[in-house]
Amino acid sequence: MTQNIYDDEKFFAGYSQLPRSLHGLSGAPEWASLRAMLPEIAGLRVLDLGCGMGWFSRWAHAQSALTVTGIDVSEKMLARAKAESDASIKYLCGDLDSLTLVRGSFDLVYSSLAFHYLKNLDALLAEIAGALAAGGRLVFSAEHPMVTAPLNPGWVVDSEGYKAWPVNHYLEDGPRITDWLSRGVVKQHRSFTTYINLLIANGFRILRIDEWGPTDAQVANYPSLMDERHRPNFFLVSAEAASQMRS
Amino acid sequence: MTQNIYDDEKFFAGYSQLPRSLHGLSGAPEWASLRAMLPEIAGLRVLDLGCGMGWFSRWAHAQSALTVTGIDVSEKMLARAKAESDASIKYLCGDLDSLTLVRGSFDLVYSSLAFHYLKNLDALLAEIAGALAAGGRLVFSAEHPMVTAPLNPGWVVDSEGYKAWPVNHYLEDGPRITDWLSRGVVKQHRSFTTYINLLIANGFRILRIDEWGPTDAQVANYPSLMDERHRPNFFLVSAEAASQMRS
Repeated sequence: MTQNIYDDEKFFAGYSQLPRSLHGLSGAPEWASLRAMLPEIAGLRVLDLGCGMGWFSRWAHAQSALTVTGIDVSEKMLARAKAESDASIKYLCGDLDSLTLVRGSFDLVYSSLAFHYLKNLDALLAEIAGALAAGGRLVFSAEHPMVTAPLNPGWVVDSEGYKAWPVNHYLEDGPRITDWLSRGVVKQHRSFTTYINLLIANGFRILRIDEWGPTDAQVANYPSLMDERHRPNFFLVSAEAASQMRS
Repeated sequence: MTQNIYDDEKFFAGYSQLPRSLHGLSGAPEWASLRAMLPEIAGLRVLDLGCGMGWFSRWAHAQSALTVTGIDVSEKMLARAKAESDASIKYLCGDLDSLTLVRGSFDLVYSSLAFHYLKNLDALLAEIAGALAAGGRLVFSAEHPMVTAPLNPGWVVDSEGYKAWPVNHYLEDGPRITDWLSRGVVKQHRSFTTYINLLIANGFRILRIDEWGPTDAQVANYPSLMDERHRPNFFLVSAEAASQMRS
């Protein structure tokens, strides 16, 4: 199964102090762009994969989703999600690398920054394609392949004084071990090619992508976000389950 | 109009010595991958945008295309294409940044390593979408956004001895001036997001992408190709004109 780093004491303590944990969706600078990819939520059966503390699940509930289901591998995250949520939101503990879903049971599958931890994304995308009803939508974010590719990630300053992000091993999909909040965090690098072609092979039609970068107002408030114009940190995808998968 | 660097004496002399100029399609390491994206050519009306010396146009003719049209901005390239081609191949001199095409007049539009020179790709994609008949396909290659992004492009060796390609200014689409074969070559950087979303906005359905990397056999024969596993040089796209564009 996927490394459950979120139940590591040190990682969880650090993660809990991030703006996106303290302030929820409004603390995530890419949220407005991700939200713009979402369909109207009212009346939809929503699945939130890697729901964490349940910020999106709670938002979807507040938008009058018909049902909201959140799934996460971390008991610590789910405990906080349940403590702060309406009882009608269903939270389940599960490993996204071995998930099975009921066919045609959701209208929207959402996932924020979880897919780059998974070993078996192909199988999960097949499950999601099967679980989406006609016209169903998958909207997700993940760490950008330029971020996950390098074996020795970190910014440098080039010979002309520009900040730059050195990329290598880009076409070598597979695990990358980095220190972020805790030591030995395992992420799975995949090229853009892998993400896009896996979606298509599983019957999705790509509707829109976004290598997220900050607005001028965000850079004015948080100057360090400027780095993400040099090398985006996240990419977002909106995709529709194709008609041949709906029969 | 687009800079016509190919008619620069020094550039043309250098370009004429590249393996892909000396040996044609077999001298281009990405050709096998690009070919795998193509439909069966026999009986198709084929348009080759940025046809250069006509290597692809001649190949398509040899594959029994119904008609082959090659368009390029460079008179030098077209002169060589015409001198070496069957007279039934139609070669036209034209600027891809201001091209107009007859609606529904082609079944396959192909373009190798031309789009990253164009200022007005959106307008060209709209023309291509309109020019493709029902079920028509666009297959193209372009320089990878990681290659075109940096203001000061070049390989470095990182602190652990790994070769790496520093990326910056990735989200800033626009001209980049580099020295390649000649001084002051102007390319137009676009993020992956821009390429993919422009295709979708112009009614294309993405069928497959490929950030091209060499096979083991290619690396054994040409060890310098190993760099392209660290940071691919090209990306390839296969896309279908969507049904709403065909009416």
